[in-house]
Amino acid sequence: MKKYSVSIIGASGYSGAELTRLLLRHPAVELRELFAFSQVGNRVSDLYPALGCDRIYQHYSGETESDIVFLALPHGEALQLLPALAKAGKMVIDLSGDFRLKNPAEHQKFYKQEKSPDAFLTYGMPELFRNDIATAKTISNPGCFATSIIFGVAPLLLGDAFTGTVRAINCTATSGISGAGRSSKTELSFSEMSENIRAYKIGHHQHTPEIMQALGSSATNPSFDFTLTPMIGSLVRGIYSVINVQLEQPVAEEKIQALYRSFYQHAPFVRVRSTMTEVRHVVHTNFCDVHIAHVSKQGSLVIVTAIDNLLKGAAGQAVQNMNIMLGLDETTGLLG
Amino acid sequence: MKKYSVSIIGASGYSGAELTRLLLRHPAVELRELFAFSQVGNRVSDLYPALGCDRIYQHYSGETESDIVFLALPHGEALQLLPALAKAGKMVIDLSGDFRLKNPAEHQKFYKQEKSPDAFLTYGMPELFRNDIATAKTISNPGCFATSIIFGVAPLLLGDAFTGTVRAINCTATSGISGAGRSSKTELSFSEMSENIRAYKIGHHQHTPEIMQALGSSATNPSFDFTLTPMIGSLVRGIYSVINVQLEQPVAEEKIQALYRSFYQHAPFVRVRSTMTEVRHVVHTNFCDVHIAHVSKQGSLVIVTAIDNLLKGAAGQAVQNMNIMLGLDETTGLLG
Amino acid sequence: MKKYSVSIIGASGYSGAELTRLLLRHPAVELRELFAFSQVGNRVSDLYPALGCDRIYQHYSGETESDIVFLALPHGEALQLLPALAKAGKMVIDLSGDFRLKNPAEHQKFYKQEKSPDAFLTYGMPELFRNDIATAKTISNPGCFATSIIFGVAPLLLGDAFTGTVRAINCTATSGISGAGRSSKTELSFSEMSENIRAYKIGHHQHTPEIMQALGSSATNPSFDFTLTPMIGSLVRGIYSVINVQLEQPVAEEKIQALYRSFYQHAPFVRVRSTMTEVRHVVHTNFCDVHIAHVSKQGSLVIVTAIDNLLKGAAGQAVQNMNIMLGLDETTGLLG
Amino acid sequence: MKKYSVSIIGASGYSGAELTRLLLRHPAVELRELFAFSQVGNRVSDLYPALGCDRIYQHYSGETESDIVFLALPHGEALQLLPALAKAGKMVIDLSGDFRLKNPAEHQKFYKQEKSPDAFLTYGMPELFRNDIATAKTISNPGCFATSIIFGVAPLLLGDAFTGTVRAINCTATSGISGAGRSSKTELSFSEMSENIRAYKIGHHQHTPEIMQALGSSATNPSFDFTLTPMIGSLVRGIYSVINVQLEQPVAEEKIQALYRSFYQHAPFVRVRSTMTEVRHVVHTNFCDVHIAHVSKQGSLVIVTAIDNLLKGAAGQAVQNMNIMLGLDETTGLLG
Repeated sequence: MKKYSVSIIGASGYSGAELTRLLLRHPAVELRELFAFSQVGNRVSDLYPALGCDRIYQHYSGETESDIVFLALPHGEALQLLPALAKAGKMVIDLSGDFRLKNPAEHQKFYKQEKSPDAFLTYGMPELFRNDIATAKTISNPGCFATSIIFGVAPLLLGDAFTGTVRAINCTATSGISGAGRSSKTELSFSEMSENIRAYKIGHHQHTPEIMQALGSSATNPSFDFTLTPMIGSLVRGIYSVINVQLEQPVAEEKIQALYRSFYQHAPFVRVRSTMTEVRHVVHTNFCDVHIAHVSKQGSLVIVTAIDNLLKGAAGQAVQNMNIMLGLDETTGLLG
Repeated sequence: MKKYSVSIIGASGYSGAELTRLLLRHPAVELRELFAFSQVGNRVSDLYPALGCDRIYQHYSGETESDIVFLALPHGEALQLLPALAKAGKMVIDLSGDFRLKNPAEHQKFYKQEKSPDAFLTYGMPELFRNDIATAKTISNPGCFATSIIFGVAPLLLGDAFTGTVRAINCTATSGISGAGRSSKTELSFSEMSENIRAYKIGHHQHTPEIMQALGSSATNPSFDFTLTPMIGSLVRGIYSVINVQLEQPVAEEKIQALYRSFYQHAPFVRVRSTMTEVRHVVHTNFCDVHIAHVSKQGSLVIVTAIDNLLKGAAGQAVQNMNIMLGLDETTGLLG
Repeated sequence: MKKYSVSIIGASGYSGAELTRLLLRHPAVELRELFAFSQVGNRVSDLYPALGCDRIYQHYSGETESDIVFLALPHGEALQLLPALAKAGKMVIDLSGDFRLKNPAEHQKFYKQEKSPDAFLTYGMPELFRNDIATAKTISNPGCFATSIIFGVAPLLLGDAFTGTVRAINCTATSGISGAGRSSKTELSFSEMSENIRAYKIGHHQHTPEIMQALGSSATNPSFDFTLTPMIGSLVRGIYSVINVQLEQPVAEEKIQALYRSFYQHAPFVRVRSTMTEVRHVVHTNFCDVHIAHVSKQGSLVIVTAIDNLLKGAAGQAVQNMNIMLGLDETTGLLG
Repeated sequence: MKKYSVSIIGASGYSGAELTRLLLRHPAVELRELFAFSQVGNRVSDLYPALGCDRIYQHYSGETESDIVFLALPHGEALQLLPALAKAGKMVIDLSGDFRLKNPAEHQKFYKQEKSPDAFLTYGMPELFRNDIATAKTISNPGCFATSIIFGVAPLLLGDAFTGTVRAINCTATSGISGAGRSSKTELSFSEMSENIRAYKIGHHQHTPEIMQALGSSATNPSFDFTLTPMIGSLVRGIYSVINVQLEQPVAEEKIQALYRSFYQHAPFVRVRSTMTEVRHVVHTNFCDVHIAHVSKQGSLVIVTAIDNLLKGAAGQAVQNMNIMLGLDETTGLLG
């Protein structure tokens, strides 16, 4: 098998570490450079001994020898680095939020940044945009909360199969604390977060416009009410989302079940489950579990989804995108 | 201070243990008998060494010497024991669900029991029904999820101050695992529940009719849409509820804030907080924190509440009820 | 009851917060000033809402109106502040390590500080030095690891009852992460410490000389081999110590049991337990549980002890010391 | 690559699930039957959705079509099943303790069983007995605590390189709760074990004679003092062992370091680390980390080791044994 050369810029964070693990064992790629910033000169085994990898984090001077580059950087930094990489003809998959929003005003508002990107990249959610991804050279990998919510409602809002109308979506999404990155904040210390739950950024989290955009709507001109309550709980990995949907008209549960199963029938990583899902069912995997938990006679639904925030919510989905871009089977290196 | 005599039937469960702790240090009562079932003959210090109490769990033969009796039993058992206690003139506070629902059909449906109680007892939620409690002899103590939800929306639905209309309430409530009692179920083992979240009984939890009834509505003939998603997470104690409310008409945030502060101004244990609350803020206390987290221009609200499920959600509220029944200050023995 | 006035310098850390909680409910004292440093101007309820206290952290300018002062400061700072307080005639209880070691060379070596104290204060371990404490004006409160180890072996090394000889003591002590204080270190974040264990400072922890000194020996000229392995695990509070003791000659288990029970017969907070102890048995209490777990025919013992690091290992023991200094019952404000 | 056929008897427990995961992705084997007992008829995906495997647990009637059989059964059951499998010429790897002890009296005493095995099987610890394993047909896979302790002291007791004498070994080993199996015991529930630590079976755990035997000594006639304190803590996976060794004569730290590095130079899964190890460094891997943490001038050592109890302590080591038996590279299917 021909081996593609791959590098990671921002390899020392949690998403970077998961990318490192996945790419080291991926049969079709050779992982070359691991670029980092504060960790330059340290070994992977210093930060992540479980990876069993003695490679050294290198300084990124703007050059890479690889064909494919993953960017796993804090928001704002990919904006600086990506254009040159794209110009140099690299395949680039960016895990940050820098290139996710088409609407510059929304980008500036929700990311609290003055600058917005010149170009919107292909949105790397294979289950919705597989064909676009297959021909793209640059990909913006979805946000973790966004992934967990979008999969829970996409069958109701995208495609022609569903003919009803969504009036409102309210959702709570509890994330593992690794979602905040390798952090030294007091409020994320073990002593503060053990056996704790805390909501934050209710109604104005930056994944809100991303979700609306992916669902064919817009945070600026919403076609349905939408409220996201993000939370962190006492778990390291995983996102568990409970999505309350209000339809204009009631729909029979069998129809909803059939709709979802049909929508995801070719999606190897989305599992429409007939029993309740849990975080443990998906942690350390690239699966997104979707369970239609409640369908009322008044037209309200409760959908529960679960993902691993670092895999389907970040590094796993990024590798899935790479597989599609390279014409490989979508699941290569992502099962087992 | 005159000391009232108190006994607990069902003292060896988690709520019973918290009652034991609270009543041992309560300045106005003398804790007499600790009745249990499977633990008869064992010492409190065998099960709960932290209580520092060497008393022995006794067999309950239908007689008690105390003036006041707390029942902390599995659902269905208070139904058998309470009538005789009431007839004998005891003050009784029942922590089970046996006497919470006025509608026998709802009791049978949601508790999956053939029998329903002959009488509905005074619902022991001091912040809503203080006057009724003050003159009652028998009290039905509220459910833990019910407590955490009701406090989040009562100002919108009870009293005359709010003139708007609630169209729908969707809520998720994550409970500590102690809510399931001292359990030997595999699915509640540490290995299954560490860093995990699991929803259950969505839309048909037995606290649903209790909540509707307390809010002046009914699960059988609801005046607004209501869906409760109960969850358990990797914490022992606490309930964290996120309540999405849809109003018919938008209301200014200041009005909502003022409404809540006014509603709870005489409630020493309900704190309307201007910053986000967390489970840790209330664990090991009898407080219920309420935070109005989001008020949209479209008339949707997000209210977040937090309680300790074993205190404000069970034993603490029970002692608060006893204090009111005895004419004591409501907070006696419950602070610090 | 006459109320003594009390202040805390360093009230915003975890030990300071526990002191605040204990002193607010203590029947014999009035808590006056809460001095802090980085938190000046913030309210207790901002940092510790569970305390239900709206007092404001004040700046300490070198003056206090109180009769009794608790110092809960990082190591090195009490060294600056204590002399003036002592000179002003205050009763002072210092929770730091600044005044624990009699040997200046040991202080400089183990605390890595150039300066050592001019005076050694009375070592505030009531179970061993109750009479000294009763007449002292200034107290050095023991370290948390030291407390958990000393209680496990004191009956073998102090007093006349035991006639055997201790050859070696090896112990592991696992602490809750609150022992590291309110911290913003990456290695203490939830993501790094959940479901983790890490040993540190093996053989050279600063509590080593403190333990040797309290046991009548010395780290500089040890009369028996001693090795302490401190660890942190995935718990917020508690210290669990396993102490392997090698005696010169075997001793019958009954003799050891009788020795320990006799030694602690007047110690209300030390419980010699006949069954295994656990962290949960002592958390949120001032108890130290001691269990003689194994006595071999070859003269080796395994003793297991458990304390709450913030209570018996810090704030609780400090209040116990204050009670003794004031001539109160030792347990005042510390039970229930 | 030729594929060997493999089956698991006892596939539904935690070790069985890890075997399932490892064997499904192993390039040299085809996983055939998954035999279980109480779970017959259920799917793997019902119990372990993260495995992404829809196979059905089968009833074991005494026949298997596979060349290689793993037994992952409760103690006592392999004793019944293994002889027939061995007679039928199967390669068998038994993960229980049934065939670990050569001395029948020790087996009966420590496993509290009347029956002892007719034959001792090859002890499957590749780093010590690789050559024996390579020619064996039946293997007894080591215990999890035993694995974590033996690797910490083997260089001192086995081989000719070390010329000193070990006088005593005292160790504490904290295990994840998965070590107790898929359990429904109250004392292993989340509510009892969260933020808790508990020691048990001090001095008489069944891995004691296994450790002594593997180290060339014997629990019946020990050539050095040995005490093991097993503990469980609030983690699902992992064992963290702190091993105090007392030598007759002091040895320079460099010599000990060199000894260990030399001893494990051909062991791909044993890492002698120069910095402290943690549970997180090895969880979800087959590594055993060994760190020489302290060497005193008096001849006492502290060695810290870490493994994943379900991998290097069970299923991973079992697959490593299979690899050696089949003449494959020892690491096949166990990295990444």
